Amino acid sequence: MRRRVCRVFHFERPQIYVVRHRTTLITGPHRSEGTRHGQLGTIRLGKRTDARCPKIRDFLPLADLNDLVFTGWDIFTDDMYAAASKAGVLERELIDRIQPFLESIKPLPAVFNRNYVRKLDGPNVKEGKNRMHLAEQLRADIREFKRSSGARRFVMIWCGSTEIFLQPREVHQSLKAFVSALESNDENISPSMIYAYAALSEGVPFANGAPNLTVDIPAMHELSRLNEAPICGKDFKTGQTLVKTILAPGFKARMLGLHGWYSTNILGNRDGEVLDDPESFKTKEVSKLGVLEHILQPQVYPELYGKIFHKVGINYYPPRGDNKEGWDNIDIFGWLGYPMQIKIDFLCRDSILAAPIVLDLVLFLDLAQRCDELRRLGIQEWLSFYFKSPMTVPGLYPEHDLFIQSMKLKNTLRHVKGEEQITHLGLEYYD
Amino acid sequence: MRRRVCRVFHFERPQIYVVRHRTTLITGPHRSEGTRHGQLGTIRLGKRTDARCPKIRDFLPLADLNDLVFTGWDIFTDDMYAAASKAGVLERELIDRIQPFLESIKPLPAVFNRNYVRKLDGPNVKEGKNRMHLAEQLRADIREFKRSSGARRFVMIWCGSTEIFLQPREVHQSLKAFVSALESNDENISPSMIYAYAALSEGVPFANGAPNLTVDIPAMHELSRLNEAPICGKDFKTGQTLVKTILAPGFKARMLGLHGWYSTNILGNRDGEVLDDPESFKTKEVSKLGVLEHILQPQVYPELYGKIFHKVGINYYPPRGDNKEGWDNIDIFGWLGYPMQIKIDFLCRDSILAAPIVLDLVLFLDLAQRCDELRRLGIQEWLSFYFKSPMTVPGLYPEHDLFIQSMKLKNTLRHVKGEEQITHLGLEYYD
Amino acid sequence: MRRRVCRVFHFERPQIYVVRHRTTLITGPHRSEGTRHGQLGTIRLGKRTDARCPKIRDFLPLADLNDLVFTGWDIFTDDMYAAASKAGVLERELIDRIQPFLESIKPLPAVFNRNYVRKLDGPNVKEGKNRMHLAEQLRADIREFKRSSGARRFVMIWCGSTEIFLQPREVHQSLKAFVSALESNDENISPSMIYAYAALSEGVPFANGAPNLTVDIPAMHELSRLNEAPICGKDFKTGQTLVKTILAPGFKARMLGLHGWYSTNILGNRDGEVLDDPESFKTKEVSKLGVLEHILQPQVYPELYGKIFHKVGINYYPPRGDNKEGWDNIDIFGWLGYPMQIKIDFLCRDSILAAPIVLDLVLFLDLAQRCDELRRLGIQEWLSFYFKSPMTVPGLYPEHDLFIQSMKLKNTLRHVKGEEQITHLGLEYYD
Amino acid sequence: MRRRVCRVFHFERPQIYVVRHRTTLITGPHRSEGTRHGQLGTIRLGKRTDARCPKIRDFLPLADLNDLVFTGWDIFTDDMYAAASKAGVLERELIDRIQPFLESIKPLPAVFNRNYVRKLDGPNVKEGKNRMHLAEQLRADIREFKRSSGARRFVMIWCGSTEIFLQPREVHQSLKAFVSALESNDENISPSMIYAYAALSEGVPFANGAPNLTVDIPAMHELSRLNEAPICGKDFKTGQTLVKTILAPGFKARMLGLHGWYSTNILGNRDGEVLDDPESFKTKEVSKLGVLEHILQPQVYPELYGKIFHKVGINYYPPRGDNKEGWDNIDIFGWLGYPMQIKIDFLCRDSILAAPIVLDLVLFLDLAQRCDELRRLGIQEWLSFYFKSPMTVPGLYPEHDLFIQSMKLKNTLRHVKGEEQITHLGLEYYD
Repeated sequence: MRRRVCRVFHFERPQIYVVRHRTTLITGPHRSEGTRHGQLGTIRLGKRTDARCPKIRDFLPLADLNDLVFTGWDIFTDDMYAAASKAGVLERELIDRIQPFLESIKPLPAVFNRNYVRKLDGPNVKEGKNRMHLAEQLRADIREFKRSSGARRFVMIWCGSTEIFLQPREVHQSLKAFVSALESNDENISPSMIYAYAALSEGVPFANGAPNLTVDIPAMHELSRLNEAPICGKDFKTGQTLVKTILAPGFKARMLGLHGWYSTNILGNRDGEVLDDPESFKTKEVSKLGVLEHILQPQVYPELYGKIFHKVGINYYPPRGDNKEGWDNIDIFGWLGYPMQIKIDFLCRDSILAAPIVLDLVLFLDLAQRCDELRRLGIQEWLSFYFKSPMTVPGLYPEHDLFIQSMKLKNTLRHVKGEEQITHLGLEYYD
Repeated sequence: MRRRVCRVFHFERPQIYVVRHRTTLITGPHRSEGTRHGQLGTIRLGKRTDARCPKIRDFLPLADLNDLVFTGWDIFTDDMYAAASKAGVLERELIDRIQPFLESIKPLPAVFNRNYVRKLDGPNVKEGKNRMHLAEQLRADIREFKRSSGARRFVMIWCGSTEIFLQPREVHQSLKAFVSALESNDENISPSMIYAYAALSEGVPFANGAPNLTVDIPAMHELSRLNEAPICGKDFKTGQTLVKTILAPGFKARMLGLHGWYSTNILGNRDGEVLDDPESFKTKEVSKLGVLEHILQPQVYPELYGKIFHKVGINYYPPRGDNKEGWDNIDIFGWLGYPMQIKIDFLCRDSILAAPIVLDLVLFLDLAQRCDELRRLGIQEWLSFYFKSPMTVPGLYPEHDLFIQSMKLKNTLRHVKGEEQITHLGLEYYD
Repeated sequence: MRRRVCRVFHFERPQIYVVRHRTTLITGPHRSEGTRHGQLGTIRLGKRTDARCPKIRDFLPLADLNDLVFTGWDIFTDDMYAAASKAGVLERELIDRIQPFLESIKPLPAVFNRNYVRKLDGPNVKEGKNRMHLAEQLRADIREFKRSSGARRFVMIWCGSTEIFLQPREVHQSLKAFVSALESNDENISPSMIYAYAALSEGVPFANGAPNLTVDIPAMHELSRLNEAPICGKDFKTGQTLVKTILAPGFKARMLGLHGWYSTNILGNRDGEVLDDPESFKTKEVSKLGVLEHILQPQVYPELYGKIFHKVGINYYPPRGDNKEGWDNIDIFGWLGYPMQIKIDFLCRDSILAAPIVLDLVLFLDLAQRCDELRRLGIQEWLSFYFKSPMTVPGLYPEHDLFIQSMKLKNTLRHVKGEEQITHLGLEYYD
Repeated sequence: MRRRVCRVFHFERPQIYVVRHRTTLITGPHRSEGTRHGQLGTIRLGKRTDARCPKIRDFLPLADLNDLVFTGWDIFTDDMYAAASKAGVLERELIDRIQPFLESIKPLPAVFNRNYVRKLDGPNVKEGKNRMHLAEQLRADIREFKRSSGARRFVMIWCGSTEIFLQPREVHQSLKAFVSALESNDENISPSMIYAYAALSEGVPFANGAPNLTVDIPAMHELSRLNEAPICGKDFKTGQTLVKTILAPGFKARMLGLHGWYSTNILGNRDGEVLDDPESFKTKEVSKLGVLEHILQPQVYPELYGKIFHKVGINYYPPRGDNKEGWDNIDIFGWLGYPMQIKIDFLCRDSILAAPIVLDLVLFLDLAQRCDELRRLGIQEWLSFYFKSPMTVPGLYPEHDLFIQSMKLKNTLRHVKGEEQITHLGLEYYD
């Protein structure tokens, strides 16, 4: 019997999950199908002169996109066709081609609490006497989907909103404490944690696309290892921060100093609205600001990066719709301290940048769970590539440099297949 | 007796060589001394948790900047103080602090021919009955400097102008053919080649900062290996192309497609004037355009990079002076082919970005010549990091990705000291 | 019997004329109908406290857009529906709504000569033994359209390509010389002049939307006055030059000095292709460069505007399509000569900016011909507002300042209706 | 005996007043002297063909800059040389040339109250039992300066900080109520009002460079007319708002619609620090936001300007120093509602743009007080040109369009000298 791969999605931010990823159906002029590692990416093997550069999906047993089935939770009752139509990200023509498929996906009632996301509210919400009771309802949903879909493998991705800023407390330090806190309905446990708990308890890997604390606590690390359900996060690296983690390593490589970096965003979608709440923005800001410090290592280069003024703003600007615009002003300095400036204007599309990350994570988390060496690790640091705030074991600094992240990802794939690591030394070509 | 390191510089473009690199003398607010690998760079050794991250200059026996002595050739007779004053790159105050030192460096008469650089002319030029005769005069200059300076080790850096576009011909294919061509005064041999021939014949390593053909021909590879005088090139990677080789790898890492990249520059210095000549610009253009193709690999990713419209322009705009401005418009596309745009405006300073490259190359070429393994290689591909068009052995594609170049450089340094290669795999932290 | 207004258009650049201007048919979200003076513009009358601000179309007997009928000439045989579909300026949905109407407009064979527009060629071209013979064919076309359409009033607008640079010669100095030159087939007479001659000979007003010499010669002034057929031109002021004539008067008003202004454009439509020919670009460049000198008056303000480096470039960049992008770098200086910079990036749409100019000129030239005072003037300087290189009588400097042009236009309208001129003095409010 | 002109300045923001405006002393390369209407501006008289275009200072009896003497108040005790050195706006070299002159100007103790400017504090502050008592101290200062300077004519300019947002109350409605409120120490009276009251009571004209309420209340209008001491304001129009009032009239002239305008600023001087307080920023924001509504007249053009999303931000960014950077994103729409975007980056210098406004206002207010017709008007609306929020009599809408403002200013100057008004009609040239 053919094994079907199945993913359980959480959805609440409608931009992402609404298009079925059977991208072979969605084509047209300039419609490159998918554009992501899991489908298009290649991996160089051996020496430069070997010309071995297979597609990743041919090198490793990734799931086929056409085999995926979908479900999810939302605070609104719109099915995926209605949600995609309202979001306005994709042209109507594309959505209409797969209307019956999209209409068939109806969101389950969500676990939601306005205390954690103040700018949103919706009718499609579960009731429960305490947080444990809510978790059990989610677990029942997952089991029911396993049954009804007939699929064997599952992944859950958090595509929901940014919650208010939470810090690790006593209740987050062990699985035991966390379980008690669920039962005592402790307010240190946010909705996203309830979802993660439900997934991991059912052995389903979990990726965290928002900057929320969620799985970045010892209790979840414990549960992940216990059930061999990999985790990764946090906060998808899409627009401005993506560009920042591309440029900053370049400045450091060339030892160009930095006086200040001012970043501002304008965006008009629901994300912009949620982040207009200072409590939610705080969570996002912490995630966005940490990037430079880890890449530039001010403690190693105090002359160059010891005094950086770094500021990040997000502005709700409805005329933009889902099209985000990120503007950066970067004040660098070169030889003898002479100042130079770089201005960047990134006219991007939030969901278009996020969607392939979701798909890649589905494929790679599914792969990780099938790989003995990776399954047992809990945190999948090799997926840092996709996140603004990569999770690591305690005591280890995260790698934010996109190019180190990319090498880490690819050398991990080489490693699990027993291929030689690439170091770019290459002196042998000159013998 | 203390061995003094001494470098023979070629200068013709006055911005670069005019400041004595005893940078400890040039300090003040925001004056980070040097900002370059040879002085500030660090290198991580061992595991992330080892916290071993020495300065490169402590890890390897680099020459001390304070031990350098300088000479050079120019088509103008201005000493370095006069040249620096006219260039207007550095504040008068900085130059005045080392006036006696700068005045003491007077350029030797240059080998120059207007057929190769049409927008320039100057009075301080050697006469010779043929190209070999000119080469011999340069060799005599080098020997005299060796004698008078008392130094033992030498490096020559080409900081001169862009010559007209030349292609490899029969006379460039072997040392023997090249020597005959020098004697028969063949017009396929440009002035920069005469300098390179003189340097390598005297056992002096040579770096090519312009996009000229110069040492990128089999005859020079042969001479370099024969005399164990390392070579590298070509075309210093400073402003817009530097940014391009930072961003393009980032786009590829994320599998973001590219429709077009339009780059234009405005600059008001002598470079801008020379490049106003279409023949010189042609040479520069070839160097600038190759970058994207090698990074993005259209043959591997035809859906993403198979049809790129790439255009580069340079405009002479006197109001800018030495402060160059590079403007880029980048048309990328993401998931399902949706288009996005990135605009970059880089308000940079040409010479300030180039000067530390010159210094790093002096230190690293000197190191290479003292290292058994590197000295014999001829082309120092590990120095690709500094060049727009990195030289390689025939049959090997060049690496343009700044981050691969940086890893290559650092893993080479680790290798020559017997340290372990860094691969960023790092699974061991999770055991 | 109701008098119908009818306009004879010349078309060759397909972006503009293809949509029927019955804009009440073309509505939808964000579809403001028309957006132009003739339909939306208002005019303040009397004192600020009078609150008299009628629409221009109510103040003056402008033709109604719904009464217009269209024809034209083109070197291609595509009807307007086919041409609009290929141009890709308007969404297919808008075009389809008026498909039968657009299909009914078929272009007449054009007068065309590749010597004047080197990058274009097409099959739908008239043959003639000399230029006079071609002119007569055009006059016959006009008379036939007058007959078949039943309309009584006519206007011709040149929306064709930029021709090569021509300078006024002896043959352009009088109507008599011009007629002989038509007969002797003199190469100083370009196709656009043949159209203008045909229109004016038939008493049809003529507007010149390209920078071509066309009606800017004494022979045409003479013919225009003789037949009381108004003329105006030249070169529609749309994207970058529009912004320039908005900003430059602002700098002058504040006495901010100017060191340099660097403008570059990228565009991917047929205009971009035609202007890739240096001869056509020359004509455009002269039109674009004159703007600053006339606005800033270097002879009056030598300290501020005596030494401006002004450069304009146009680059053919297919990824942009009809969406033009104009980038400006402006180096200004303020008090005590301190330098400041302004960067502008205008992501515009060429045809969308040009179309309402065409419509306004149709309405205003028709008005001019019905007004005794204006009809006799020949050149309609009060329409300078729409042009990059406004035509004036010899000896008079043109007004390029958009705000002077706007005041000139509105005070002319007030004048022809006997309303008081507006001076913005306004001391009376304080009595 | 020669009459000396003397001005009483209020200073608190040290960038502006610290350089003596005897600009003939401050020259050098690119040092155009002054760059302002009072010194460089010209005025066209009569017909275009008359070539009458005298300098304004020759057309009207403006004071000579060399005759000015200065004083002022500050919360810091630094003399002008110390203040200018700290501000870092001008090069040290320029300041040093007039060091003795600058050192001779020592600020008088200021009237200051932290409740109105929360981010500042200083030691050089007057004590008083109530606001009337403070006003009397200022009046005594003015009388003492009149005596000691020997000057006959005076002007006071407010260059101090932005106060918290105040709205007109009962106490501001008449001079009588205001005087009682001074005596009862009413907190609706801010420090800037106390200065204005003192100046006008002594017959000294007053200009308001900040967005504070100050003289924009009936009580001050009354006092101004009573003592024939002209007033004007408010909020100097310098960087981003200047550009906005240049561009917006251009969009309206062409009937280009507007969806949104997002403006953000980064600046690192004391202004940036003061405006980091939300209460001060509120005052500034109201001043900045009103501009578009008045220029674009949404009530007249609801289709084009009825739904504008306009947002203005100011960010304190120390790396910039006094060099402000204003970034604008403008979403316009053209024919058939097609959207277009304009991005502007203005790298400006706050004080360099403000200083010539201060000087012009000194000259023009002094002129107004010597002109019978203007002196009696109170509010000098013809000086709207210099302000973000021009003052008018109640019931009259302000003119924000820079070009209407400029025409108003120049036609007022023509009017007071009996010259004909310019209307730009110009039909006579075609007779």
